[in-house]
Amino acid sequence: MNNFVFQNGTAIIFGKDTHLQVGVETAKFSKRVLIHYGGGSIKQTGLYDSVVKSLTEAGVSFVELSGVLPNPRLSLVEEGIRLCREHDIDFILAVGGGSVIDSAKAIAVGVLYEGNVWDFYSAKARAQAALPIGVVLTIAAAGSEASDSSVITNEDGWHKRGMGADCIRPTFSILNPELTNSLTPFQTMVGIADIMSHVMERYFTSNRNNDLTDRLCEATLKTAINNARIIWREPSQYEARAEIMWAGTIAHNNLLGTGRIGDWASHNIEHELSGIYDVPHGAGLAVVFPAWMKYVYRENVERFVQFAVRVWDVDLGFESPEAIALEGIRRLESFFSEMGLPVRLDQLGVPSDEHFSEMADKAVAYGPLGNFKKIHKEDVLHILKLAQ
Amino acid sequence: MNNFVFQNGTAIIFGKDTHLQVGVETAKFSKRVLIHYGGGSIKQTGLYDSVVKSLTEAGVSFVELSGVLPNPRLSLVEEGIRLCREHDIDFILAVGGGSVIDSAKAIAVGVLYEGNVWDFYSAKARAQAALPIGVVLTIAAAGSEASDSSVITNEDGWHKRGMGADCIRPTFSILNPELTNSLTPFQTMVGIADIMSHVMERYFTSNRNNDLTDRLCEATLKTAINNARIIWREPSQYEARAEIMWAGTIAHNNLLGTGRIGDWASHNIEHELSGIYDVPHGAGLAVVFPAWMKYVYRENVERFVQFAVRVWDVDLGFESPEAIALEGIRRLESFFSEMGLPVRLDQLGVPSDEHFSEMADKAVAYGPLGNFKKIHKEDVLHILKLAQ
Repeated sequence: MNNFVFQNGTAIIFGKDTHLQVGVETAKFSKRVLIHYGGGSIKQTGLYDSVVKSLTEAGVSFVELSGVLPNPRLSLVEEGIRLCREHDIDFILAVGGGSVIDSAKAIAVGVLYEGNVWDFYSAKARAQAALPIGVVLTIAAAGSEASDSSVITNEDGWHKRGMGADCIRPTFSILNPELTNSLTPFQTMVGIADIMSHVMERYFTSNRNNDLTDRLCEATLKTAINNARIIWREPSQYEARAEIMWAGTIAHNNLLGTGRIGDWASHNIEHELSGIYDVPHGAGLAVVFPAWMKYVYRENVERFVQFAVRVWDVDLGFESPEAIALEGIRRLESFFSEMGLPVRLDQLGVPSDEHFSEMADKAVAYGPLGNFKKIHKEDVLHILKLAQ
Repeated sequence: MNNFVFQNGTAIIFGKDTHLQVGVETAKFSKRVLIHYGGGSIKQTGLYDSVVKSLTEAGVSFVELSGVLPNPRLSLVEEGIRLCREHDIDFILAVGGGSVIDSAKAIAVGVLYEGNVWDFYSAKARAQAALPIGVVLTIAAAGSEASDSSVITNEDGWHKRGMGADCIRPTFSILNPELTNSLTPFQTMVGIADIMSHVMERYFTSNRNNDLTDRLCEATLKTAINNARIIWREPSQYEARAEIMWAGTIAHNNLLGTGRIGDWASHNIEHELSGIYDVPHGAGLAVVFPAWMKYVYRENVERFVQFAVRVWDVDLGFESPEAIALEGIRRLESFFSEMGLPVRLDQLGVPSDEHFSEMADKAVAYGPLGNFKKIHKEDVLHILKLAQ
């Protein structure tokens, strides 16, 4: 087990009707906030009205900035920074999913920084301070509600890049699973693919002897798989929605990374896909992750055997570890298909070969990817071909 | 799943040589601290010298208070409160295990309270503020290093009582698994019984539909069991020591209680045992917990079947859930015996019947115990008889 530091102070306020506490929770920090959200969906569902009512009752005034898109854009972040400065705002309330929260984090850190906020995403500067952030979560997926990371797309060149810093971890996050009932089955399953990918990026490590973390990862994956199947049959089942929502937070609050180095090659390859084709992040991961697995499993077959046996209950004879490993990968792919997710690039609407070389170049622009196996440009091309 | 709030901001600094960071970490909060510890063991192992050197190098001065006993006493807490006030101390550094940390928490909350600190333990007052606390942990057991609870024994009547409050959660805890190498096998296994009990108190809940929390509990129990066996054979194996130490924190930082109400009857019964006979807490739990299980399992046989199958790999035919449940309990008891722990009161040195009625009276003094099954005086007596 590697040495590590683990600290995560985000207050998770979880359960039915908890979104009605947003005013009281926000008022503990600020009386003048920016509400940040996406398109019209929170207005259609009535969530917007509930939030505004709760804030108003708690004496919190606000300015709002909507229009966050999936794969959130730098230009809107810059507008948010201007708005906060203009209106003396010292708290950002993100109402939405990972894109909204990531955008809010970028605004929160940008307001207190004199340079260009993209400096943090292009590794030119390291964030030291941010405005406090509150969250009302509307989709279980990105885990951004308790993570120290944010991913933003710079329209100038369509670069999609992430940053991490303790100061951007939300102060509180309100998780009401009922708010996810309005998602389509596809949106829900894309979120679950994202959750599972966050676990798998940490699970496939080259560090050995990390038993508890392995088992916590396996517990989270099994929960995601079983409850996805329940939601597939019965989309509004509260208990299954709740399991998925809590799993989404645990998957990415870094508990599952304690004692090890994660991989993250699949995430980086997917960033290039969704940077160019604007595909949903989780759908891109459902395509890239199995392809990455097929490409790298020989690096450490035993780890893939453990994945197959403990997560997917593969029960083949022990004489061929490779057969067990491949069956585990097959079951992951088959599960994604069963949940209506794409598992090949063409199902994602990505044409063969068109931008493969460009994507591979951009993916390794800051150096080789991954830790389980170091991935260079040629490896990215192989993985993309396996995803065809 | 029940609604819940989860927040735990303790910084865990984990791994080899991390105790050498204590000065730097402490200096972030205070330059004048109370070092609180137990008997001479930290002097024999050299830990005391390392801590003093690290503090001195970081410019931190200190007053010290040693002499914490297992089942820490109110009188020493009161002495610590006096010392802190006399020397204007605003930070408590606990170097030791659960007893030292619990005593430090009582001092930390008592310094800022005008009344008698026992008020918090007798439910007469609720703690609102405490001095910050740092920890250098020397045994994996109580989980006090990241918990919001403290248990103190009042010599006046030998009442052992607990309190819980967010403000007493340590600010940072340094966990170096190597520091646990100097423990005897018995001390190590008593600690592991305590860890497992913290998980089981939460596992045996009457709440249904709490899949992820169940699986995280099972993951932690399996880790504890497997790594206890490794330590039994090879006491200084770093990786196994590390797994147990991290499991000890996870077991009691309340992650494993999310979405449910725990039971805690076994802990309360054990408190009376160790209050009167001063037996090690974990050893008392190894005796009480299986007895409690035998008494209550019929309340929800399916839960005990899940425990047997998922934690102990019981693989009996499904026609008799009761047989599976009982086999799980038997394997727990047998595991404790295998690890050199007592599983009957006489092995603990507790004479039959002598104080049973007195202990049962005290155990239910504030009302019936437990949630999985409500436990009244007669039930406590039955459980004690099953432990004979």
